[in-house]
Amino acid sequence: MAAAAGVSTAAVSQAVNGTGRLAEATRRRVLEAAAELGWSPSASATALRRARTRTLALVVRRPTDVLGTDPHFGELITGLEGELAPRGYGLLLHLVAGMDQESALYERLTAEGRIDGAVLTEARVDDPRPAQLRDLQLPAVLLGAPDPGSPVPGVGLRRQGNGVHEAVDHLMALGHRRVAYVAGPRELVHTRLRLAAFEEALADRGLRPVAVRHTEFTEAAAFAVTEELLALPARPTALVFPNDSMAVCGIGAAQRAGLRVPEELSVIGYDNLPLGRWLHPRLTTVDQQVQRVGAAAARLLLRQCGEDVPPPVLDEVPRLVVRESTGPVPGEKSR
Amino acid sequence: MAAAAGVSTAAVSQAVNGTGRLAEATRRRVLEAAAELGWSPSASATALRRARTRTLALVVRRPTDVLGTDPHFGELITGLEGELAPRGYGLLLHLVAGMDQESALYERLTAEGRIDGAVLTEARVDDPRPAQLRDLQLPAVLLGAPDPGSPVPGVGLRRQGNGVHEAVDHLMALGHRRVAYVAGPRELVHTRLRLAAFEEALADRGLRPVAVRHTEFTEAAAFAVTEELLALPARPTALVFPNDSMAVCGIGAAQRAGLRVPEELSVIGYDNLPLGRWLHPRLTTVDQQVQRVGAAAARLLLRQCGEDVPPPVLDEVPRLVVRESTGPVPGEKSR
Repeated sequence: MAAAAGVSTAAVSQAVNGTGRLAEATRRRVLEAAAELGWSPSASATALRRARTRTLALVVRRPTDVLGTDPHFGELITGLEGELAPRGYGLLLHLVAGMDQESALYERLTAEGRIDGAVLTEARVDDPRPAQLRDLQLPAVLLGAPDPGSPVPGVGLRRQGNGVHEAVDHLMALGHRRVAYVAGPRELVHTRLRLAAFEEALADRGLRPVAVRHTEFTEAAAFAVTEELLALPARPTALVFPNDSMAVCGIGAAQRAGLRVPEELSVIGYDNLPLGRWLHPRLTTVDQQVQRVGAAAARLLLRQCGEDVPPPVLDEVPRLVVRESTGPVPGEKSR
Repeated sequence: MAAAAGVSTAAVSQAVNGTGRLAEATRRRVLEAAAELGWSPSASATALRRARTRTLALVVRRPTDVLGTDPHFGELITGLEGELAPRGYGLLLHLVAGMDQESALYERLTAEGRIDGAVLTEARVDDPRPAQLRDLQLPAVLLGAPDPGSPVPGVGLRRQGNGVHEAVDHLMALGHRRVAYVAGPRELVHTRLRLAAFEEALADRGLRPVAVRHTEFTEAAAFAVTEELLALPARPTALVFPNDSMAVCGIGAAQRAGLRVPEELSVIGYDNLPLGRWLHPRLTTVDQQVQRVGAAAARLLLRQCGEDVPPPVLDEVPRLVVRESTGPVPGEKSR
């Protein structure tokens, strides 16, 4: 094999064990020669990945228009890049239509030795990716609630339901009783987690949501669902949205319908994106610290890739940020 | 060299000439062996790049916080990915602090054979990148006004000044005479181009801007400059911003200062991001078709990389989209 690659046997062992001071080109040549010659495939495959590409994959499974409209991903990428850029790492961004496509992509990127690791976004219920990446021996982190059972470490804030609990407490304190909940896609873990927390918080007070609507996070859905909810016989006095972008659409739709926010309708978002500070009224939202989570994910992944970076610290919980889009339930003031 | 790489001489010529049906791993091994052995460096370097990585670089030189806050890049990436994703191409995103860092990065990515090409954003005055990428023999496109003299093809809408001209026409027709212009960084080509068009359009009517302020596209600058402009003795009745994000901040700042938009202040953005449709009032802005430009850039680059894709068609010009954030100059209505 040393002959095939045209190097010394010492170089081969260094390449395979990822030790020594081998030039990147030499190491790749050796490892690819090894892979080609079918020599101890798994070992060479593992070593192939030890050859640094300084590239981490971020695969996003969203309709492209949503990626374009939802600044959430800009925030996430910002958090990741904050840790990657100083170390010369890049983020290989792929958009895919479905789970099969995403799995095939990890297979190819790993086989071609194009990436050192991957950041998995949007944990699904029965998510097949953690097991796949473990089998590919590809370093990875999964954004979302940490799950001790998962083969891939999860990165997310603790007590994910806390933000929604605080949102309900806030609305109750303002006298709201008719609250509607706009949710994300059913298959997302955080959708179920937050909806459960929301219903639990209301149940603690013997209440139920006046309505729950699942959406695909689109702008169109935000407008449609807001108009539909505001047309309900028992019109909700407060709307809780699954992200800030949709909440902003909701405020716009309500204002166009002639409702004053927050005097006649309270609106709460989720994410705490800069966008929420730009508007008047400023958006009351749940801060899930997207950038900090992205930075922590990057650090954890860099460490898995053998980089010497301090361990991530992420002990925050999602907290409600009260601004101007929530107020006393209509009529309460005059009492 | 064939011996060193452990392949046939035929394979070598195929690898170097990018012909034949050579396995990716074999080709890379041959080419890296060639590079290593110092055999005809330039030829092998060129060929190394012929080895498809199905990866294109997008290097963004912005403070990370701006990338996070400005949805413009989300739109651009969406446009690029719309063409790349179906062909299995990924976008390698790197954030850099300065021009030196950006140049060094192209050197490294090219030397390591990590990318097939690069999308250059934000054309600078005296931009060194086109010449550098030509010297690296790396396929590239430059976003912005097409410049026949550039070694790298430019991708952008024709008649870039048209949007600003239409904005001025619109404001004049509404009776505005005191118009302030918020600009981007001086070193950006589009900053100079649009400011020149703005001042020219006003000069056609014997007018000058009441104020021009250069900014770094930050949210903080948008708030500060809006407050400063609204405090001017000859307060402008209309503000023109360099992007939609800053225009939204401007509207928020004006509303918090107690001014009604558009009744007491007209505001115009630039980009036509979805964000502008979410708000009430909806944002009047210049549509520069970020997604279409991104898609055209991707196609042009894919063709340079030897992919069989239809040539991009981009015959639009920037057009003003009149919505709800502009209205008659205060007092005009009652006349």
